[in-house]
Amino acid sequence: MTESTPASEVPRYLTGDKAGLREFLAKFDVFLFDCDGVLWSGDHCFPGTVETLELLRKNGKQVVFVTNNSTKSRADYCKKLEGLGIPSTVEEVFSSSYSASIYISRILKLPENKRKVYVIGETGIEQELGSENVPFIGGTDPAYRRDIKPEDYKLIAAGDESLLDPEVGVVLVGLDFHLNYFKLALAYHYVKRGAVFLATNIDSTLPNSGALFPGAGSMSAPLIMMLGQEPTALGKPAQAMMDAIEGKFKFDRSRACMVGDRANTDIRFGREGKLGGTLGVLTGVSSKEDFVSGSVRPHAYLDKLSDLLESDS
Amino acid sequence: MTESTPASEVPRYLTGDKAGLREFLAKFDVFLFDCDGVLWSGDHCFPGTVETLELLRKNGKQVVFVTNNSTKSRADYCKKLEGLGIPSTVEEVFSSSYSASIYISRILKLPENKRKVYVIGETGIEQELGSENVPFIGGTDPAYRRDIKPEDYKLIAAGDESLLDPEVGVVLVGLDFHLNYFKLALAYHYVKRGAVFLATNIDSTLPNSGALFPGAGSMSAPLIMMLGQEPTALGKPAQAMMDAIEGKFKFDRSRACMVGDRANTDIRFGREGKLGGTLGVLTGVSSKEDFVSGSVRPHAYLDKLSDLLESDS
Repeated sequence: MTESTPASEVPRYLTGDKAGLREFLAKFDVFLFDCDGVLWSGDHCFPGTVETLELLRKNGKQVVFVTNNSTKSRADYCKKLEGLGIPSTVEEVFSSSYSASIYISRILKLPENKRKVYVIGETGIEQELGSENVPFIGGTDPAYRRDIKPEDYKLIAAGDESLLDPEVGVVLVGLDFHLNYFKLALAYHYVKRGAVFLATNIDSTLPNSGALFPGAGSMSAPLIMMLGQEPTALGKPAQAMMDAIEGKFKFDRSRACMVGDRANTDIRFGREGKLGGTLGVLTGVSSKEDFVSGSVRPHAYLDKLSDLLESDS
Repeated sequence: MTESTPASEVPRYLTGDKAGLREFLAKFDVFLFDCDGVLWSGDHCFPGTVETLELLRKNGKQVVFVTNNSTKSRADYCKKLEGLGIPSTVEEVFSSSYSASIYISRILKLPENKRKVYVIGETGIEQELGSENVPFIGGTDPAYRRDIKPEDYKLIAAGDESLLDPEVGVVLVGLDFHLNYFKLALAYHYVKRGAVFLATNIDSTLPNSGALFPGAGSMSAPLIMMLGQEPTALGKPAQAMMDAIEGKFKFDRSRACMVGDRANTDIRFGREGKLGGTLGVLTGVSSKEDFVSGSVRPHAYLDKLSDLLESDS
């Protein structure tokens, strides 16, 4: 699925190139932002982030914050942005849990009696399913935070309705800090009984405090191994997320630009989505060499996002 | 790694073939048994199992029960056999947790200050590590049955000794009914800091009550995804287990026979271990067609294990 960027296409380095920056910005009406590594790092907002977003908004550009973080709702994410000093609205946030909720409510055609979602995940998923009026079970319900009991095996094997709700038609797996054996057993049996297997995103790790911890993909991993089946993923770089963003913002893809720090996820996401532009920044994971010589390269790149301010100087 | 059985080699069907059975049995001094699907199914011992084992023992054959079940110690497993009416001794049982313990204590050359094992698993692993005098942490210790806390991230990222024991040189993952996010985070960081990544076995599922539940492999799956690295597995069909069995029983492989119901695990285990014989039984997973036409085929097969009794009639 990954398309390589043609060898002839060399990304344009725009830092310090005022005319180039103006020309680049004029091509787009919508800017999709990866967040960590672009706008901030960890708990630390990069200097100039706020001013850069202001400049874009002032020039009539739609700004969208695209995040694979499924543990927070869009409203929670706005609060996080606010805590970093970045003004935003719920409408500007697009998270993988929201993407999954839209996919379930508007794209999946579930039979009338199979509308419930069994959730492995935190409150962000629950809130977004709620915002789309999708019924769900599991998630943060304390009834699921328990050990498996000897009698559970027989009940689950028999498909007993006391443990397996017959109305469940979807299993949605996101990052769950309370993952356990019982939840995995139920998820496996729901899928074996016909439920659609979805994941908010499949990032194997989650950065925190400068190290890596288990990510949403690690919650799906046992199920993938047991089922021999991959989930449909709704986060970057899956194009289901791009489709959902387009469905919401109704933009012209040729007039949209994806901004990110990682060639293999963010830039790939924009490239495979046939956006008019992709813009790499060197404040995160990918290096200049990745952007210039990697197999997936952005249309242009900057040392840092706030170099866009030079267009206005 | 899987070697196909040569097309010219057709398994011999021995049920009802008294002379053939006698000839087959005479070739071997040692019989390695897979258990579930061969000796019993679920909680139900097959008729004739006890008599068949008696016959073999009476004729001076060494009997070994080979199990990937890591949650039970060998002593626990004897009790299970006893509960099914099958006499056995601890010395006849070879489990994946025992295999792992032998591998750690006798084969891995760990530096003096890196001898501790961080365990994801149940008491069977702990007992077998204890029997080999291998120090361990984790496992069933209630201190590990908790949620990850906000302060844990920084401590783990910094390699703080309050959470990451600097003497841990091995991460051993088996079936753990109390798997959680905190345990996975610790295991990941131990391996990233240089610990050897081992698994008692990598069966993705565990049969119970006629259905499948998460197996030991599903406990390793998140770590495999995060690390991009497979563990060294010590259960069937990994040859590390055969090496450990040979190390203990000092048998001549050409005079040993593996008996099992699954071509792709049991029979493969015996074939790849270059045993003199492999014997399939049709009371479990594989079908006659699998044994006769599959890519890995036994030397001989029976309708059921107790057909061996016909050799003595």
